[in-house]
Amino acid sequence: MSAPRWPRLTVVSPGLIGGSVARGVRARRLAREVVVVARHEAAIRVALDAGAADVGTTDLAAGVAGASLVVLCAPVGALPGLIRAAWPHLAPGAVLTDAGSVKRSVVDAASGCPARAGVSFVGGHPMAGSERSGFEASAADLFDGRLALLTPTPDTPESAVLAATALWEGLGSTVRRLSAEAHDHLVGQISHLPHLAAYALVSAADGDALPLAGRGFIDTTRIAASAEALWGDIFRENRGPLLDALARYEAVLGRWRELVARGDWTTLEAELGRAREVREKLA
Amino acid sequence: MSAPRWPRLTVVSPGLIGGSVARGVRARRLAREVVVVARHEAAIRVALDAGAADVGTTDLAAGVAGASLVVLCAPVGALPGLIRAAWPHLAPGAVLTDAGSVKRSVVDAASGCPARAGVSFVGGHPMAGSERSGFEASAADLFDGRLALLTPTPDTPESAVLAATALWEGLGSTVRRLSAEAHDHLVGQISHLPHLAAYALVSAADGDALPLAGRGFIDTTRIAASAEALWGDIFRENRGPLLDALARYEAVLGRWRELVARGDWTTLEAELGRAREVREKLA
Repeated sequence: MSAPRWPRLTVVSPGLIGGSVARGVRARRLAREVVVVARHEAAIRVALDAGAADVGTTDLAAGVAGASLVVLCAPVGALPGLIRAAWPHLAPGAVLTDAGSVKRSVVDAASGCPARAGVSFVGGHPMAGSERSGFEASAADLFDGRLALLTPTPDTPESAVLAATALWEGLGSTVRRLSAEAHDHLVGQISHLPHLAAYALVSAADGDALPLAGRGFIDTTRIAASAEALWGDIFRENRGPLLDALARYEAVLGRWRELVARGDWTTLEAELGRAREVREKLA
Repeated sequence: MSAPRWPRLTVVSPGLIGGSVARGVRARRLAREVVVVARHEAAIRVALDAGAADVGTTDLAAGVAGASLVVLCAPVGALPGLIRAAWPHLAPGAVLTDAGSVKRSVVDAASGCPARAGVSFVGGHPMAGSERSGFEASAADLFDGRLALLTPTPDTPESAVLAATALWEGLGSTVRRLSAEAHDHLVGQISHLPHLAAYALVSAADGDALPLAGRGFIDTTRIAASAEALWGDIFRENRGPLLDALARYEAVLGRWRELVARGDWTTLEAELGRAREVREKLA
């Protein structure tokens, strides 16, 4: 689809994700005006200097006023508060969306806001990122070729879903819709648990072992270089599904430990082979 | 150091590692003649057609005869048998080495061979590889910039260690010496466990979750695309140290599960932060 050109698009919190949204929107001319909202003047200056936005403000109410699309890109724990704070100031016809890694808590916060005619929210999560964080790691093409997940509820107007779809497709992503519950369950397995597992691999290794690390360890633990504050936040917000995913993981490891301990290499190799086949199908 | 030029160097089992040794030795002119020994004529033809060797044979005794350096690159479970089979046929002055991922079992097999004047063994392990396997995945520069570990015993002649050092340095690697026990303990943590953990992450994920995989999951589980026969073999040969590493990993995961369950985010973030700091120091 050909992307619309929004008169004004506001990005709240121009870090890795928000900065990349702002840069990408500018690079692809998806909006006539890009506004960034940040807590500190310094962050605004950096974004303006980089040409990622036309206007910047530390005032959330002023920053979202008049915007047709507002994208909240703050750490996931801050999103419910931002939704409630931005909500009364959104212009009629505005669509509010977010880029948080957990969706149940965010969607619930939006559902709890008083109905306002013509103002709508749809949860979003671009499956793109980096172990780096902050605006300096942002890139206009971060979302190119990636997946973006949207989590509308039965009450979400189709127009809001289409607006968020147009944003992510405009940035080069493929969009999929699923429920917030399914999102948190599946992303818990495919993203949150792997982060916890990677941090744990580093944590469990002797200091003496680390200098021996080859490419396997380097790749397997790349995401363990991610900012712990962001991931602690995600783990907290997705605690239930993360615990479910972790329990499944621990069950597999425990079963394989038994197979190694009793020397059942045939069964172990068969299980490793099934995982290898599944993994080979992913790019 | 400037690498010697061996009159004849023999590579047994020209797969990913052996093929890369043969190609690298040819590319860097480290030997006047490269011999490959494989079980099947087809594998020899492929290596000769690729210019990775001058001569090939399926006869181990003939292939190692007259070689000053013999590098065994077969799967680790096959190495003890190959050492015993090659030993009586080695030329006086020959150095036998290997590229196996586990060292205790290999070094023990060599120590069990009857002493032969001027014939010596030193265990080796290039910390280079790929999730791909077989000669078709081999590359002359696979070892360039990597680490190669050597595991001499107190009985290993220094001349043998220097010969193996010259090989790996000639192929672009940095060489470190450590005991076979230390090797198996540390490599169990830094390579074997991460492979098991990566296979387990894939195994624990729902089929529905896999299409949502982003770069984090892709990188974290790249090594789960590795051939299960090779890794089953490594896990079997390094069973004790692998079980120790797995127990440490399970202990970290279990402790973090408790922290998540009781909502102790401060302690969890502190532990994640320590892992992040350690990981950031690696490349």
